[in-house]
Amino acid sequence: MGILSRLPIVQAPMVGVQDAALAIAVCEAGGLGSLPCAALSVEQARAQMLAVLDATRAPFNVNFFCHKSPTPDEAAQAQWRDLLAPFYADLGLDPQATVNAPLRKPFDENFCALLEEVRPPVVSFHFGLPEEHLLRRVRLTGAKILGCATTVAEALWLEARGVDAIIAQGVEAGGHRGLFLDMDLDAQPGLFTLLPQIVRSVQTPVIAAGGIVDGRGIAAAFVLGASAVQIGTAYLLAAQATTSPAHRAEIQAARSDSTRLTNLFTGRPARGLRNRLMRELGCLHPAAPAFPLASAALAPLRAAAEARGSGDFSPLWAGQGAAFAREGDAGDLTRQFWQEAQEAAQHLGERLKI
Amino acid sequence: MGILSRLPIVQAPMVGVQDAALAIAVCEAGGLGSLPCAALSVEQARAQMLAVLDATRAPFNVNFFCHKSPTPDEAAQAQWRDLLAPFYADLGLDPQATVNAPLRKPFDENFCALLEEVRPPVVSFHFGLPEEHLLRRVRLTGAKILGCATTVAEALWLEARGVDAIIAQGVEAGGHRGLFLDMDLDAQPGLFTLLPQIVRSVQTPVIAAGGIVDGRGIAAAFVLGASAVQIGTAYLLAAQATTSPAHRAEIQAARSDSTRLTNLFTGRPARGLRNRLMRELGCLHPAAPAFPLASAALAPLRAAAEARGSGDFSPLWAGQGAAFAREGDAGDLTRQFWQEAQEAAQHLGERLKI
Repeated sequence: MGILSRLPIVQAPMVGVQDAALAIAVCEAGGLGSLPCAALSVEQARAQMLAVLDATRAPFNVNFFCHKSPTPDEAAQAQWRDLLAPFYADLGLDPQATVNAPLRKPFDENFCALLEEVRPPVVSFHFGLPEEHLLRRVRLTGAKILGCATTVAEALWLEARGVDAIIAQGVEAGGHRGLFLDMDLDAQPGLFTLLPQIVRSVQTPVIAAGGIVDGRGIAAAFVLGASAVQIGTAYLLAAQATTSPAHRAEIQAARSDSTRLTNLFTGRPARGLRNRLMRELGCLHPAAPAFPLASAALAPLRAAAEARGSGDFSPLWAGQGAAFAREGDAGDLTRQFWQEAQEAAQHLGERLKI
Repeated sequence: MGILSRLPIVQAPMVGVQDAALAIAVCEAGGLGSLPCAALSVEQARAQMLAVLDATRAPFNVNFFCHKSPTPDEAAQAQWRDLLAPFYADLGLDPQATVNAPLRKPFDENFCALLEEVRPPVVSFHFGLPEEHLLRRVRLTGAKILGCATTVAEALWLEARGVDAIIAQGVEAGGHRGLFLDMDLDAQPGLFTLLPQIVRSVQTPVIAAGGIVDGRGIAAAFVLGASAVQIGTAYLLAAQATTSPAHRAEIQAARSDSTRLTNLFTGRPARGLRNRLMRELGCLHPAAPAFPLASAALAPLRAAAEARGSGDFSPLWAGQGAAFAREGDAGDLTRQFWQEAQEAAQHLGERLKI
């Protein structure tokens, strides 16, 4: 994937915990920095892209979601608010309180026009791909296009639509699971078996994602056939990340079994550190409204809790390797990851000469 | 783990699909062959161990389960039989039919006396460890003792009790999940993050298990800190495996998303290829009697279906890498795995010299 960036390390786009600063630091270190655009307006996304272009000549990636916008459902929202009412009472909040928080929007005409205007070198999509007429326009900008697969079937679907690389997302990954063909939550394998199975099923280069938190992980992914890796969780404590203090504290306390898949925060399954909301409602709840509509009713709870330094009602996105997140400059981390990968390769060679 | 066998490859003990022949072939190739003893009588286990001793001078492993035998519960059995009644009817079986099938028994005084008599070089335990007075006796035989961990907490528990190596079992693994401290099925991470987290938490050597199906997997596990690997699924099609024709056919048709965790076959969660029983009852059912008592009422269904070449009611244990299982002599496979691991190490060194 030398086509994408000097080092085969993609910084995972992470809504809510980063902006251009993290992407710029990774780009300048030789990795592929990413901008998460799903929760941004077109104007905000433009400003972020221009900030990157202003700071670095290295290639960068912009990420969008490709879900279908759901029809608002008053009854579902009312049921969801009823379920959350005891938490509102506990925090002394008006049950009808609202907070103006941005909803995640799907890639559309307006975002497409922005890409045609700014022409970022790499564009990645989550939850499948945009409709064919939009995808064609993105391709015409000259951007390399990345898609995310959680099964071999999804990888084949992406390859059939001509993506330039496939992100193989193992069950370990933090944040929103990229599944889009089969919504069965038990279908996605661990990276150890998903990666080689996708690699042998497609011709397209494969970017390994999920559970890669250091240079050993990079080396292991290359052994299993990856052409590059995507790293997110390991950057959550970086100086340039905007991770909240409460989120940082929970990451620093994380153990091997601290994360769970949950649909509570947005309506779609995503992996994060288990917190009060997840413990008390159960991590997966059938009453969570369709993505991304679950988040609105949570926003007042989240704001009130975060104001007192608590992550009880915040999505504390993190992968299963959260305990490996390191503090430091994101550029230094990127260089360290690559240095460690090379050392791991050398060490492996010595160990297997038996 | 050169202490265990010449090559750092443990053949996973697999109830129902192997006997001494598979263990012998792996031992003779330099790996550590294993005998699954959980479903054997003391006499059967003795005969299997003597068969190995008769065939090879290489070290071998014997495996036992450490569950607590449940109190039989007539009401639970009746409820379970009611749930299975439509399948009995469909197969034209008497709903009160029984088949004499062996139940999995926990390690006890009698098995301990057998170890004192035969003195196998390595003994591995699943679902924790035997009671301390039995464990002490096993240790006095001179056997190396292996325990299985699905979380860092379980690894620390095993280390505190002095095991000689810890099997780190990732979510990818086929057969019974070894969990024993926290029974939350969402706690076990994928191998990609479980392995390095256990490695950095203990001093004891770690054997990586779950999703390792070829030499690339071995090399990747070594990169992530393993001292050895345990391989099961990749041997399921070996000439020496006793895997049933129906089970073999399902393995040959397996894809990346074909396995599920199920408690239907024994009462405890185990990973296998999804079949009719799992599809129609749901993979995890609260009415499945306590381990290992769920299996008795299934035995007539299983026998009848297998007689017509169907695995509809059989536990088709397999890990998430089932699609990588290869036919061939188990000794040849073992040598191939090791050869591939060395090639993978060399290839990695070349790729990362950037």
